[in-house]
Amino acid sequence: MNDIAAGVLKGDPRSIARLITLAENNDPIAAKAMKTIHPKTGNAHVIGITGVMGSGKSTLIYELTREYRKKGLKVGIIAIDPTSPFSGGALLGDRIRMMELATDDGVFIRSMGTRGMLGGLTSAVYDVVEILDASGKDVVLVETVGVGQAEVDVVKIADTTLVVLVPGLGDAIQTIKAGIMEIADIYVVNKADRSGVEQAVAEIESLVDIACSETDRKTPVLTTVAKENKGIIELVKEIEDHKNYLNKTKMLDVQRRKRYEAELVEIIRKRLMNFIFDESTFKGKVEDLIDQISKKKVDPYTAAEEILGKILK
Amino acid sequence: MNDIAAGVLKGDPRSIARLITLAENNDPIAAKAMKTIHPKTGNAHVIGITGVMGSGKSTLIYELTREYRKKGLKVGIIAIDPTSPFSGGALLGDRIRMMELATDDGVFIRSMGTRGMLGGLTSAVYDVVEILDASGKDVVLVETVGVGQAEVDVVKIADTTLVVLVPGLGDAIQTIKAGIMEIADIYVVNKADRSGVEQAVAEIESLVDIACSETDRKTPVLTTVAKENKGIIELVKEIEDHKNYLNKTKMLDVQRRKRYEAELVEIIRKRLMNFIFDESTFKGKVEDLIDQISKKKVDPYTAAEEILGKILK
Repeated sequence: MNDIAAGVLKGDPRSIARLITLAENNDPIAAKAMKTIHPKTGNAHVIGITGVMGSGKSTLIYELTREYRKKGLKVGIIAIDPTSPFSGGALLGDRIRMMELATDDGVFIRSMGTRGMLGGLTSAVYDVVEILDASGKDVVLVETVGVGQAEVDVVKIADTTLVVLVPGLGDAIQTIKAGIMEIADIYVVNKADRSGVEQAVAEIESLVDIACSETDRKTPVLTTVAKENKGIIELVKEIEDHKNYLNKTKMLDVQRRKRYEAELVEIIRKRLMNFIFDESTFKGKVEDLIDQISKKKVDPYTAAEEILGKILK
Repeated sequence: MNDIAAGVLKGDPRSIARLITLAENNDPIAAKAMKTIHPKTGNAHVIGITGVMGSGKSTLIYELTREYRKKGLKVGIIAIDPTSPFSGGALLGDRIRMMELATDDGVFIRSMGTRGMLGGLTSAVYDVVEILDASGKDVVLVETVGVGQAEVDVVKIADTTLVVLVPGLGDAIQTIKAGIMEIADIYVVNKADRSGVEQAVAEIESLVDIACSETDRKTPVLTTVAKENKGIIELVKEIEDHKNYLNKTKMLDVQRRKRYEAELVEIIRKRLMNFIFDESTFKGKVEDLIDQISKKKVDPYTAAEEILGKILK
């Protein structure tokens, strides 16, 4: 077993951080270590937390983590920010509270940018979930920001997905518009000390009634005031109930298969694109074809077929 | 020349709609027609319009379209909704005003869902831009909803990108967090009849000052009240100025090359993934590998390498 994989399996934070960085950089060492750790994965409960900006997700994650720590559970946190394709840098915002957790050995926090090029979630997120899982984390929290592709994708990674809303602002309606209703296993109406909370809950519940009319589980709607630690114990309990439900109905296997399929697709895509766009032999050819497309001498479909003809058996 | 391509080049709405549908379904007929129309593209000015939900983008697009029509220009509108990966259906919301435009021969409107599987923007959007361009539209407006990957991706398609904000709600700061500041060619503070508009403009301008300190063009910040048609003529003028700037600095060629590269990547990705995941010969093998990953008998990286070994030269 190589050193870095051994370090990860022992839960060593430096090994975890290093392997994540290698995975983000598509380093061949990462692939080797990922192969080693895979058999030790599958224990962590992966919780996706999504919702509009300003809904207090970070604070909710902070409080959830503190609650899990009280129970003696180890926690991994993955925060995914939409980021610029130009600067490559992610501005982190007000994650100050998170820093408190960073000094706790039982917590590992990683912030990742989404990559501009291809796909809603940064592709390395699958690796990071596996790494944290193999490192002995009992719970892995995956936070995605905004309403868009990343939210829709998180359901492929998470065992349990929380959709966080706030009272007012027509959030419930906006959420339906955005098509993210179907991904929720649990709704959380955070900032429930604000006016309009009853209306928000009623709106969501009536939507749940329609959506869940033919299923055996009705998606629960919880209220929290994360910054005052209100409703957190109840939320942890509800997440536990959902986990039990997944186990009882064998839905966990279905969910995990979905994750592995998404991961497999992602690795294949990444390898192929690197092969085509980074290999020195192809790079020139690809640039030349883009030139010709610009000059209308060739069309994109013919160009694609030419490249595929060169690489496929 | 095949009939459908000929119809598109004549601007026939039924041919346009049909070719878009074929492209969305990855029909081989679409690829053939796309090859035919490509030489006739490159005339339309593609304008990306992005920003948070509730910022009034649809109304803004409605008013922009009316203004372009007054000038005798033909307009294509592509509205991209994040949509459920489960239902496959996009809920359209309050696009009632848009319907007014639907009776105008000089306007073509298409609403597209984002696909859950792969990529922020639905991959067919590149095709749709080319189709509308080839059909003789002078302006193509591409609307993306929410703050996420689709917003970051739209810059690869658009010649000019508008980022739409509203006063209050800390939008400016949220936008920076989301990393979408760099994509704006023009900022639009819509709903400028609300309080806090001066503060919003000042905030954005101070950010622009930092971001543009070393560039020759300072990103303009405009105010509009789209629902009262205020500021629209000025916005159209500003878009025209940006177009002239792109032409003068040869940036348009750079921008277009970027679009063609993204399109080429997308076609290749789509073809490869269809080849691997839809071909009957592979499908069983892939399913079998996912089973083995689930059972920890094989890891995702080794599985990916096995599949790649079968298809690559």
